[in-house]
Amino acid sequence: MKIQGLIAATFSTFHADGSLDLSLVQAIVDKLVSQGVKGVFICGTNGEGPNLTSEERMATVEAYIKAVNKRCLVLVHVGHSSIAEARRLAAHAQQAGADAISAVSAFYFKPASAHTMVDCMAEIAAAAPALPFYYYHIPAITGVAVNPLEFLQLGEERIPNLAGIKYTASTLHEYQACLNYGNGKFDILFGYDELLLPALSVGAKGAIGSTYTFAAPLYLKVMQLFNDGQLEAAREMQYQAVKMIQCLGWYSPIPAQKAIMKLLGTDLGPCRLPLKALTDDQQAKIAAYLEQIGFAALLGSVTHTAV
Amino acid sequence: MKIQGLIAATFSTFHADGSLDLSLVQAIVDKLVSQGVKGVFICGTNGEGPNLTSEERMATVEAYIKAVNKRCLVLVHVGHSSIAEARRLAAHAQQAGADAISAVSAFYFKPASAHTMVDCMAEIAAAAPALPFYYYHIPAITGVAVNPLEFLQLGEERIPNLAGIKYTASTLHEYQACLNYGNGKFDILFGYDELLLPALSVGAKGAIGSTYTFAAPLYLKVMQLFNDGQLEAAREMQYQAVKMIQCLGWYSPIPAQKAIMKLLGTDLGPCRLPLKALTDDQQAKIAAYLEQIGFAALLGSVTHTAV
Amino acid sequence: MKIQGLIAATFSTFHADGSLDLSLVQAIVDKLVSQGVKGVFICGTNGEGPNLTSEERMATVEAYIKAVNKRCLVLVHVGHSSIAEARRLAAHAQQAGADAISAVSAFYFKPASAHTMVDCMAEIAAAAPALPFYYYHIPAITGVAVNPLEFLQLGEERIPNLAGIKYTASTLHEYQACLNYGNGKFDILFGYDELLLPALSVGAKGAIGSTYTFAAPLYLKVMQLFNDGQLEAAREMQYQAVKMIQCLGWYSPIPAQKAIMKLLGTDLGPCRLPLKALTDDQQAKIAAYLEQIGFAALLGSVTHTAV
Amino acid sequence: MKIQGLIAATFSTFHADGSLDLSLVQAIVDKLVSQGVKGVFICGTNGEGPNLTSEERMATVEAYIKAVNKRCLVLVHVGHSSIAEARRLAAHAQQAGADAISAVSAFYFKPASAHTMVDCMAEIAAAAPALPFYYYHIPAITGVAVNPLEFLQLGEERIPNLAGIKYTASTLHEYQACLNYGNGKFDILFGYDELLLPALSVGAKGAIGSTYTFAAPLYLKVMQLFNDGQLEAAREMQYQAVKMIQCLGWYSPIPAQKAIMKLLGTDLGPCRLPLKALTDDQQAKIAAYLEQIGFAALLGSVTHTAV
Repeated sequence: MKIQGLIAATFSTFHADGSLDLSLVQAIVDKLVSQGVKGVFICGTNGEGPNLTSEERMATVEAYIKAVNKRCLVLVHVGHSSIAEARRLAAHAQQAGADAISAVSAFYFKPASAHTMVDCMAEIAAAAPALPFYYYHIPAITGVAVNPLEFLQLGEERIPNLAGIKYTASTLHEYQACLNYGNGKFDILFGYDELLLPALSVGAKGAIGSTYTFAAPLYLKVMQLFNDGQLEAAREMQYQAVKMIQCLGWYSPIPAQKAIMKLLGTDLGPCRLPLKALTDDQQAKIAAYLEQIGFAALLGSVTHTAV
Repeated sequence: MKIQGLIAATFSTFHADGSLDLSLVQAIVDKLVSQGVKGVFICGTNGEGPNLTSEERMATVEAYIKAVNKRCLVLVHVGHSSIAEARRLAAHAQQAGADAISAVSAFYFKPASAHTMVDCMAEIAAAAPALPFYYYHIPAITGVAVNPLEFLQLGEERIPNLAGIKYTASTLHEYQACLNYGNGKFDILFGYDELLLPALSVGAKGAIGSTYTFAAPLYLKVMQLFNDGQLEAAREMQYQAVKMIQCLGWYSPIPAQKAIMKLLGTDLGPCRLPLKALTDDQQAKIAAYLEQIGFAALLGSVTHTAV
Repeated sequence: MKIQGLIAATFSTFHADGSLDLSLVQAIVDKLVSQGVKGVFICGTNGEGPNLTSEERMATVEAYIKAVNKRCLVLVHVGHSSIAEARRLAAHAQQAGADAISAVSAFYFKPASAHTMVDCMAEIAAAAPALPFYYYHIPAITGVAVNPLEFLQLGEERIPNLAGIKYTASTLHEYQACLNYGNGKFDILFGYDELLLPALSVGAKGAIGSTYTFAAPLYLKVMQLFNDGQLEAAREMQYQAVKMIQCLGWYSPIPAQKAIMKLLGTDLGPCRLPLKALTDDQQAKIAAYLEQIGFAALLGSVTHTAV
Repeated sequence: MKIQGLIAATFSTFHADGSLDLSLVQAIVDKLVSQGVKGVFICGTNGEGPNLTSEERMATVEAYIKAVNKRCLVLVHVGHSSIAEARRLAAHAQQAGADAISAVSAFYFKPASAHTMVDCMAEIAAAAPALPFYYYHIPAITGVAVNPLEFLQLGEERIPNLAGIKYTASTLHEYQACLNYGNGKFDILFGYDELLLPALSVGAKGAIGSTYTFAAPLYLKVMQLFNDGQLEAAREMQYQAVKMIQCLGWYSPIPAQKAIMKLLGTDLGPCRLPLKALTDDQQAKIAAYLEQIGFAALLGSVTHTAV
C-alpha cells in the first residue's frame, strides 16, 4: 500500500455540552471526498483521540467508515498509553472495516529504545493483522524520539503488516532516509502541513495533516505545481499555507483550527479538556488575520487538477 | 482527611503471559497491614495504571478493596489521557468503596496553565464527589510542571472535595509552601521515598511511595527516629534507603523494584510494555549490590514503634 | 578543607552605564563579615561571572581579596565555555590570593559523560594546583546533569586538589550520597537557599547562596535552631525564607535580588544583558510583597549565636 | 548584502598538544576557494569558537583574513556568554578586515524574550557598525528558541546593520517566513547541510555549513541540478549527503567531521575539551561506512558548473 495525495486528519465533533456529536461526520466526509482527498485519519492527535473514551473512539470509527462508504481510505489511530487498550482499538478497527491503523508511542511510560518501541508496535499491529500498520512518529507530543530509520530496520522483521510511518517531524533528512530505505519499500506519509513542499522536494508522495481538513485545495495545488515543475509558483502557494498556519501557534493549534473551520462555515463544537475552545476575542483575532492575508478568498479561488 | 504515616504504592501483578493476576493481592495487603502501613495507592505510576485497560484497573481496585477489608485506606489513581475515561474510573472507585481518589495531569495533551489543570481536576473530582481528591503532581513523568501552590490556591474554590496533593517532586521548598498554605488546611503527601527525611524536616506527616511496598519498616524507623529527635540516627537510616534506591536507576525503576520484590520472596510476574522485566543478568547485579550494602539483613533487623 | 557555615554568593556591582563599579565591594564585604558569613563566592552565577569579560572577572577578584583582607574565605568561580580561558582565570585566582576555586561545566559544548566532565575539571583544577577545587553542579543552568556521586568517584583519582562540590540542585538524595561518599571525605556545599533546612537534615554543614548576601541572619538562625534541636522553630524560620524567595521567581531571580538589595539600602546598579534590571513597577510589587510578609522587620529582629 | 552559494564553516586546527595551529589555514582556504565556495565562517560552532580564548579567536580571524586575501568572504562568529566580550571580538573583526559578523544568543544566562534577544544583538552589532550583522539561530545548542521572524520584525528597527540570519534549525516553515519577510529584504542563510535541498525548495539561495568544508562539490551539484530543474537528480545527490551525515551522529559530530577530514587527507589535529577526538576504532568505523556508501569516490567524481 502506497498512498499518493492527501489524507485529512479530521477533528472530533462535539455537542455544546462536550458529548460526542457524530451527526456532522457525513457532511465533513462528503466535502473532503469532493475536494479530492484520498482518505481520512480518524481519532489521531487532531481528532483528539486521546481525549476520548475507548467507546467514543470506536463509535467515531464506525461513523466515519459508514459515511465514507468506500469512497476514500479510512485510517484509524489506535495509540493509547495502554498497549492492551490499543490492541482492543486495533481489533475493533479491523472488524469495523478500516483500511489501515496507526499508533503513536505509549506516552505515559515511554519506550526506552527503538527495540522496545518495535516490541510495542508489534503487539498493536498483531491485533489487526489484516490491516496495514503505520507507526506514528510525533516526538513533539509524545516526547519519544526513536530514530525512525532504525524503527524501520528493526520493525520490518518483527511486524509483518508494517506499511510505513506517519511522519510528523521537521527532520526532513531522516524523512528522506526513511523514504529511501530498502529501495523505497515503505510508505512514509508526511505529517507537517507547513513543510509539505520541502517534503515533496525530497520525495514525499503522500501526506496526512489537519489543515487538509479545511484547506485541501491549496495543498493539492502545491502538489500539482510541484509535479508540473512550476517550483516558483508552488513555493508561493506553500507560503500561503505557512502564513495561515502562523496564527495557529498564537493559541492552542487544535482549538484554533476548529475556530477556522467555524469561520469557514462548519461548527464542530468545543474541544475536550485539557484543550479549550478559543474565546470570542481570540476567534476575532484569527478572523481578522485570515482576512488580512486573504486566506478565504484564496481558498475559494484555487483550482487544481487531480494529483 | 489528613493521613499520617506511609501509604504503599503497590505494583501490578501479572501472570507470565502478561495478563493480570489478582491472586497475589491478598498476601501483599496482609503483609503491608502487618507492617503498619496506613494505606495502599492502587493503579498509580508504580502500579502501571496507565498500562492497564480501564476494565483491568477497575478489577484491580475491587480486588484491593476486598483484600484490605477496611484494615487500611485504599487510594485509587484514576488519571488518564482522557478526562472522560478518568471520570469513569473515579465514579467506579467511589461506588466500589475506595477511601480517596487521585489523578495525574492529562498527559497526551497537557494543560496549558494552572487554571486549565484545575478545570481538568475539577471534572474528575466531581465524578466521585463523596471521596477526598488528591491532585497527583509528578512533573518528571507527565512533563507538566504547574506550580502546586497555585494549584491549591485556584483549586480550593473549584474543587469541593479537594483534599490535597500527592507530591512527587524534589522541590521541597514548594512542598513546604503547600504544607503551610491556608494554615495547613490541605494534606500534602510526599511521594519521593529517597527524600523522606528532608520532607519530614519541613513538616511532612504522610507519604506515598513505591519502596514502602517492600521496605516500609526501614522508613517507619526513619519516621520514629525523627519524631524522637534522634536526627543523626534518622539520617543514617535514610541513607540506607538512598543507597538501596541508587540501583533502581541502573535500569528502569519499576521493573527493578519488581526484581527486588522477587529477591525478597514475592514474584509479581513481568511488566507490561513499554516496561520490560529485568534480564537474569540485571537481576543478579541488583542482588549482588543489595547483598553488598546489606539491605535484606538491615530490613530484617529493623524494629520500630508505631508512627 | 571543610567549610562550616554560610558563604555569600555576591552580586556584581555596576555603574548606571553598565561598567563595573568596584567601589561598593568594601562595604558589602564588611557587612557580610560582621554578620558572620564564613566566606564570599565571587563571579559565580549570581555574580554574573559569565556576563563579564575575563579582565572584569580578574579585577573583581582582586577587589574582593583586598576588601576581605583575610577576614573570611574568598572562593572564585572560574567556569567558562572555554576550558583554556577558565585555566587562565584559575591561575589568576591562585596568584591573586584566593582561598579556593570552583567551576561549572563547559556550557556551549557540553561534556558527554562524567568521564569527560572530570577531564575538563582536571584541566581547570591543574591551573591552580595550590588551591582547593570545587566542582559547581548546577544542571538547571548548564543543562548538564552528570551524576555528582560518579563525578566524585572518578574525580578523586584524577584531580589532586579536588575539595568537593558546590551543589546547586534539589536532588537531596544524591546530595546525601555525596556527603557520605568515602566516609565524608569531600566538602559538599549546598547551593539552594530555599532548601537549606532539608539539606541540614541530611547532613549539610556548609552552604553557598545568593540570598545569604542580604539575609544571612535568617539562615544562620535556621542553622542555630537546627543545631539546638529546635526543629519546629527552624522550620518556621526556613519557611520565612521560602516565602521571600517565592517573589524572585516572578521575574528573573538575579535582578529581583538586586532589587531587594536596593530596598534594603544597597544599590548595586543594573544587570548586564541578557539580564535586565526590574522596572519600577516590578520593584514596587516586590516591595509590597516583602512588606506584606514582614520580611525586613523579621530580618532586623533575628538574633543568633555563632554557628 | 545577499550571499548566493556556499559558505564553509571551517574547523579549528590544533597541534597535538591542543594549542592552536594556524599553519594549516592557507591550504584549507586555497582548497575551498578552488572548489567554488563563496566564503568562510570562522570561529563558529564547528570552528569551536566557544572553546577558544578570545586571543585565540582573534588570531584565527587574522590568519583567515590573510589567507583568504579577498578571494572570498570572511564571516566571523563573535558570540560569547558575555556581551561585553562579544563586542570586543566584533570590534576586532571589523578592524581586522572581516566582511561580516554573526553571533549566537548569550548561552549561560539566556534572553527571556525576542525583545531581550534584540537588545543583546543590537549591542554586539553596534561594536562593528561598518559590517553586516547576522543573528545566528541555533536553538539545539543554545537552548534559546526565539521566533526568528519576530527577531527580524523587532531587529530591523533596532539594528541598523542587521543583514539577516544564519538559520540552523529544521523548521523550514519559519525559514520560509523569514525569507519572505519584508519582500525578502533580509539574507537568511541556511545552516543545516542535510536539509539543503528542502531549503532550496522554499527559496534558499545561500547556505553556511560544516560539511561544505570537505564536501562542497557534492552540495554545489545539488544546487546546480536544482537550478536546472533536475529535481530527481538533485534529490539523489542530496541523499548522498544525508547518508554521509548519518555517521556523524554516531559520535560527536565535530570530532567525527575532523576524522573525515583526516580520511580525506587533511589532519586538523585533536579537538578541545569538552569535545574529544574520535578513537582509532571509531575512526575506522566511519572509514568503513564511508567506503561502503562510496562517499570518497562520489566526491572525486562530482563535477558542477558555477552556481
